[in-house]
Amino acid sequence: MSDLLWPGDHRCGELFSDAAVLAALVGVESAWLRALVRHGIAPAEAGTDLAGRAGPEDLDRLAAAAESGGNPVIPLVALLRERAGTPAADWVHKGLTSQDVLDTALAMCLRDAVARLRADIVVQVRALARLAGEHRGTPMAGRTLTQHAVPITFGVKAAGWLDDVLDAYDRLDVPPAARFGGAAGTLAGPAALAGSARGALALAAAAADELGLDHRPRPVTAIGDGLVACTDAWGRIANDVLLASRPEIGELSEEHGGGSSTMPQKRNPVLSVLIRRAALAAPPLGATLHAAAAARVDERPDGAWHVEWATLRTLARRAVTAGAQAADLLAGLRVHPDRMAATLAAARPGIDAEQREFTGDADGPYRGATDAIIDAALQRAAGVLG
Amino acid sequence: MSDLLWPGDHRCGELFSDAAVLAALVGVESAWLRALVRHGIAPAEAGTDLAGRAGPEDLDRLAAAAESGGNPVIPLVALLRERAGTPAADWVHKGLTSQDVLDTALAMCLRDAVARLRADIVVQVRALARLAGEHRGTPMAGRTLTQHAVPITFGVKAAGWLDDVLDAYDRLDVPPAARFGGAAGTLAGPAALAGSARGALALAAAAADELGLDHRPRPVTAIGDGLVACTDAWGRIANDVLLASRPEIGELSEEHGGGSSTMPQKRNPVLSVLIRRAALAAPPLGATLHAAAAARVDERPDGAWHVEWATLRTLARRAVTAGAQAADLLAGLRVHPDRMAATLAAARPGIDAEQREFTGDADGPYRGATDAIIDAALQRAAGVLG
Amino acid sequence: MSDLLWPGDHRCGELFSDAAVLAALVGVESAWLRALVRHGIAPAEAGTDLAGRAGPEDLDRLAAAAESGGNPVIPLVALLRERAGTPAADWVHKGLTSQDVLDTALAMCLRDAVARLRADIVVQVRALARLAGEHRGTPMAGRTLTQHAVPITFGVKAAGWLDDVLDAYDRLDVPPAARFGGAAGTLAGPAALAGSARGALALAAAAADELGLDHRPRPVTAIGDGLVACTDAWGRIANDVLLASRPEIGELSEEHGGGSSTMPQKRNPVLSVLIRRAALAAPPLGATLHAAAAARVDERPDGAWHVEWATLRTLARRAVTAGAQAADLLAGLRVHPDRMAATLAAARPGIDAEQREFTGDADGPYRGATDAIIDAALQRAAGVLG
Amino acid sequence: MSDLLWPGDHRCGELFSDAAVLAALVGVESAWLRALVRHGIAPAEAGTDLAGRAGPEDLDRLAAAAESGGNPVIPLVALLRERAGTPAADWVHKGLTSQDVLDTALAMCLRDAVARLRADIVVQVRALARLAGEHRGTPMAGRTLTQHAVPITFGVKAAGWLDDVLDAYDRLDVPPAARFGGAAGTLAGPAALAGSARGALALAAAAADELGLDHRPRPVTAIGDGLVACTDAWGRIANDVLLASRPEIGELSEEHGGGSSTMPQKRNPVLSVLIRRAALAAPPLGATLHAAAAARVDERPDGAWHVEWATLRTLARRAVTAGAQAADLLAGLRVHPDRMAATLAAARPGIDAEQREFTGDADGPYRGATDAIIDAALQRAAGVLG
Repeated sequence: MSDLLWPGDHRCGELFSDAAVLAALVGVESAWLRALVRHGIAPAEAGTDLAGRAGPEDLDRLAAAAESGGNPVIPLVALLRERAGTPAADWVHKGLTSQDVLDTALAMCLRDAVARLRADIVVQVRALARLAGEHRGTPMAGRTLTQHAVPITFGVKAAGWLDDVLDAYDRLDVPPAARFGGAAGTLAGPAALAGSARGALALAAAAADELGLDHRPRPVTAIGDGLVACTDAWGRIANDVLLASRPEIGELSEEHGGGSSTMPQKRNPVLSVLIRRAALAAPPLGATLHAAAAARVDERPDGAWHVEWATLRTLARRAVTAGAQAADLLAGLRVHPDRMAATLAAARPGIDAEQREFTGDADGPYRGATDAIIDAALQRAAGVLG
Repeated sequence: MSDLLWPGDHRCGELFSDAAVLAALVGVESAWLRALVRHGIAPAEAGTDLAGRAGPEDLDRLAAAAESGGNPVIPLVALLRERAGTPAADWVHKGLTSQDVLDTALAMCLRDAVARLRADIVVQVRALARLAGEHRGTPMAGRTLTQHAVPITFGVKAAGWLDDVLDAYDRLDVPPAARFGGAAGTLAGPAALAGSARGALALAAAAADELGLDHRPRPVTAIGDGLVACTDAWGRIANDVLLASRPEIGELSEEHGGGSSTMPQKRNPVLSVLIRRAALAAPPLGATLHAAAAARVDERPDGAWHVEWATLRTLARRAVTAGAQAADLLAGLRVHPDRMAATLAAARPGIDAEQREFTGDADGPYRGATDAIIDAALQRAAGVLG
Repeated sequence: MSDLLWPGDHRCGELFSDAAVLAALVGVESAWLRALVRHGIAPAEAGTDLAGRAGPEDLDRLAAAAESGGNPVIPLVALLRERAGTPAADWVHKGLTSQDVLDTALAMCLRDAVARLRADIVVQVRALARLAGEHRGTPMAGRTLTQHAVPITFGVKAAGWLDDVLDAYDRLDVPPAARFGGAAGTLAGPAALAGSARGALALAAAAADELGLDHRPRPVTAIGDGLVACTDAWGRIANDVLLASRPEIGELSEEHGGGSSTMPQKRNPVLSVLIRRAALAAPPLGATLHAAAAARVDERPDGAWHVEWATLRTLARRAVTAGAQAADLLAGLRVHPDRMAATLAAARPGIDAEQREFTGDADGPYRGATDAIIDAALQRAAGVLG
Repeated sequence: MSDLLWPGDHRCGELFSDAAVLAALVGVESAWLRALVRHGIAPAEAGTDLAGRAGPEDLDRLAAAAESGGNPVIPLVALLRERAGTPAADWVHKGLTSQDVLDTALAMCLRDAVARLRADIVVQVRALARLAGEHRGTPMAGRTLTQHAVPITFGVKAAGWLDDVLDAYDRLDVPPAARFGGAAGTLAGPAALAGSARGALALAAAAADELGLDHRPRPVTAIGDGLVACTDAWGRIANDVLLASRPEIGELSEEHGGGSSTMPQKRNPVLSVLIRRAALAAPPLGATLHAAAAARVDERPDGAWHVEWATLRTLARRAVTAGAQAADLLAGLRVHPDRMAATLAAARPGIDAEQREFTGDADGPYRGATDAIIDAALQRAAGVLG
């Protein structure tokens, strides 16, 4: 799954690729089939493992066939029934509806994406905690509305980034959940099979547990907003690095600069550029999920459901790519205290005006204050770093 | 604050109006001034109450004067100093920066908006719990992709709406917080005044407590996303009501229909129309807040902060208007079981196909299954209704 | 109409204010009434001038009354009939529907907004043409991906801004049009009154001509996209000015800097900050208009029409404010060739690498090339400046 | 290029696929190389055809390598130089910058997409003109705000759809253009090679002409907005068809209904569902292009350029898929005049209230009026159908 037009996308590997989605769809059908067998609804011989009954070589055919019914589950079920043999064929997908299978498979892909994001955020948090701690005494010019404002330290700036990343991390805490409600989500199909509503809930719980998913679906916008919150946080960091990497400022630089097709001297802050790109793309994708949620009607909507799938995939891959790039960026970030000091010196005495007003002394107490901010952020970080 | 182009906006009253924002701004400056006095930093005589020193008659002047510095706090502080008399004038805004005052004032307005939303959601939840309970045995046609799918009950449909509203309610749980960080957020100003970082934190906490606000600011996107989640939930309900109000369907109707300027026979489902309108408007406003978050740079950004204020106001007023309309809509919703039964009868036998497959019996077990779903939603509702 | 939360909004004055919208609504009803009289449909005595029959003092009442029918035209027609006296009362709004009146009134407000924008763009174009011409020989460092790339001139940079502004100017060329289609847009009402379809078209044309509007409505997204194209163009300029105003770069500055509430030394590039703010806000507003267009259904949609009104107003006022600010910004822009030269000198020899590759000479031919670009832009500008 | 999560995407074939983008990139480099040879800048022996020097088998490698410099042109140029042999290798990409090649290649892909859209719109226009003409006398209920309003004909409804589609068609008229400006767009590189600015312009024109592209780039938002205008128009049609396909209404149906994974009786209006899906997805993608335009800075921006590529691709494929589906939908649309008549009869006498007011007669003059509207639309259509 190459993407020539989104450099860095290869970092996602097969995450949410068509092959991964297909594997997840088959996994959901398998888990349900096994639950039917274990609960004594389907005969033991129906308990075939469906994994491997459909694979990458079927993708083109399934994707094309998905159009006539509007979703890929319909042709997949036909394919699985064809290949499962008797008696399994009679029990595949029994009691489920397309939405059960697709939404649950997307939850599995999302879970994998969030796991990747979490791991990369831990790397970021570790790097940021180190930067905040090591540079708690590294003075630099604070800037507001592009102008020199008051002296700060690079440590307190890093602590601000860290707080943002931790806020985003918190917003990823939306348990991916299975959905096994049958046609129109009434549980009627599963209940008919299980003989009771209680039986239907037990079936659904068993299948969800096997897949490692929560039992109660949350609005898909909740995780969508969390993904956008991540790219927001990284976007801010990228903006600060891009600015500080400018030759006129030179206070920060990326570990490796990117080259140019025509200008041999260029060292571009490429990771930051690519992260900023994701931060521009993500908010409208999150808004699409909300617009879809707001356009729902009936027991399954006429387009508002269908638009979610690819939007979620794109948003998740954008976030995962940016998260990996942000981890690299922060782990390799070069800090140039000499340039920071030079900027600050040049900004004096103007930049000390506020402090002088309070203390009559430009070398005032900001250090203690920023230490308090840094320490609070480090304490939060410790909760994530364990 | 009339709005001819957003019918229903008058329901918000002064919420987030310019006058309310001004009062909040003055309130923040007052709370800070009192904190300075109480902590022995400013002399007791400086402890003037600023409330009333600036009011609606100053709005035009302040709004126009806000442009030259880019925010309304700068001219307001000048005005308050001018009117506060000595020695208060020397202490007004001491140690603060514009962003402290504006962000904290917006948090106060948001708190009021969320309080209104919560109260209206309680009305909605009560109405929905009643509908779900009363109609747990009212059969109707379930629809997917616009077509009759399987029989459901109106109770289980109402339970689905209820679950959505409760999910939205949960997302409003973002504590509005004060921000008292001084220039560039370093706490340096407050610390200089208080003599220590610890003193600065105590000052900030005292002022926040007086205003009834939390101490730790969250990203503004968190509450923004929560507001959009609300309009999403109401939008879905409105869509279902709009559809069911069509004369060809007639299964639901609003208590009062709206008239027409030219067609005397019309009874339009106006509340639903206006709610759906808000559901179309809100997602892009939420996306603007994310785009702003992602565009931050420096210790205070060059436009990305400024775009948040009016966006938040518009989003909050849209949500509050829609929330009040949704409360009215649901409290007065007319259910027509006869029409539901007629639709279902006309949809037979096709609509029973799935059940027949499972049970050989069209009057199958869906009732028990939907009861389980309804009961789960009612249990969640009880947590809100107390 | 003050707006404390959008500094600069007062520049719009009454443009699109509730009072202006009301006056436009009354103007549309008046024009129609006069057309009915002139075409011999209504008696001469019905030809009362409605202007002044409703005014600012009615706004609160009308705005509140607009909710029950979903739009402000319904209560306004009632009010006008009440106040018009006989026989005019019988003929007010005859043959029209609410959408005719509201959409036509919005077109009038848009026309005024576009006239303001055009005038401000002429100022911008004049300033940009001057900058491009005067600085065609002012060398500076060209930058790509934040890094020094090749030498350019400030003239060619200004020419790029100019091209962008001219592109945006072209996109404002969407003739605002009247809509007089009667209920459901079928022309049936007007045709019944006029005795024929041809008569109905003549009536509609007469009323449109009186209002100075085109006869064929275009999708509202066309002008919406044009407004966003304007803020895009100004946003880019603002970004460049913000960057160049940074003390470390200092190549450009605004005529008047903005102050701070706490830091006396600050000179903030406030106009650029506020323009950038508008450029962040506008794209999602344009997207709302598209989402509304895509959500249309029936002969008048159930919310997708209603969301357009306030969205258009906000977008138009944001654009007009930003346009006026951009005119001021460009007319007063301070260029600092010495700082540009210093940056360029510091960037050497790296920045000359590409030229050296081609010519073995760093003082290569870029001047002639950039002159060609500048001249092409100046020629386009001449078309606007006349 | 299968897309399991966007059913119907296979209709786009290789349009804008990675392979197509790569071929376009190579095509641009080839055209430039040939122009260099023809203008006597490069030696004749350098005029190798580059087509085939890089192909699908290189995609994974190129996509991964694109990250380090931030765009795929850098590794592609290296590859082409490696494979072109001497002396061509010395001249490949000479005088160009990555942005020239990528933007021009995207323009080529867009041109192909617009050609597809135009062809499908012609099919739509033909179908709509037929529907409008054949059904000019087919009465049905006009609906506003979901309620029966006045009688219309299906012909006039189809004419409204047609007008919308023609408006969208007009907005596709943005000539795709080449960009050959060299580093930072100054023409300096090409001018150095050609010996003059005039020579550089001639070189650029020659290469553009060979590729069949215009010479002056327009903002990418112009074509982006045009693509969204298309999905807006189709979205409205889909909404009307979805509504009219509901069993309770039954006035329209798709030629082939889609099936269900669990409900054998279902005939879902799948094409409309999938078109509506695209109409939900497109506006935020258009907004992303505007946000990118507004975020530009420097001679090439630090992320705002990079986000355009994949956004354009997705938007174009969404539009092309929906355009093909809309062509199928309209060509095969089934109209049910009997159901329309039945609805209208049931809506009487209320629905005739407005007409009765004007004529005392319910079978009033709407026919002539709607004919006038239909004829105007047919006349516009003739301009497209030739």
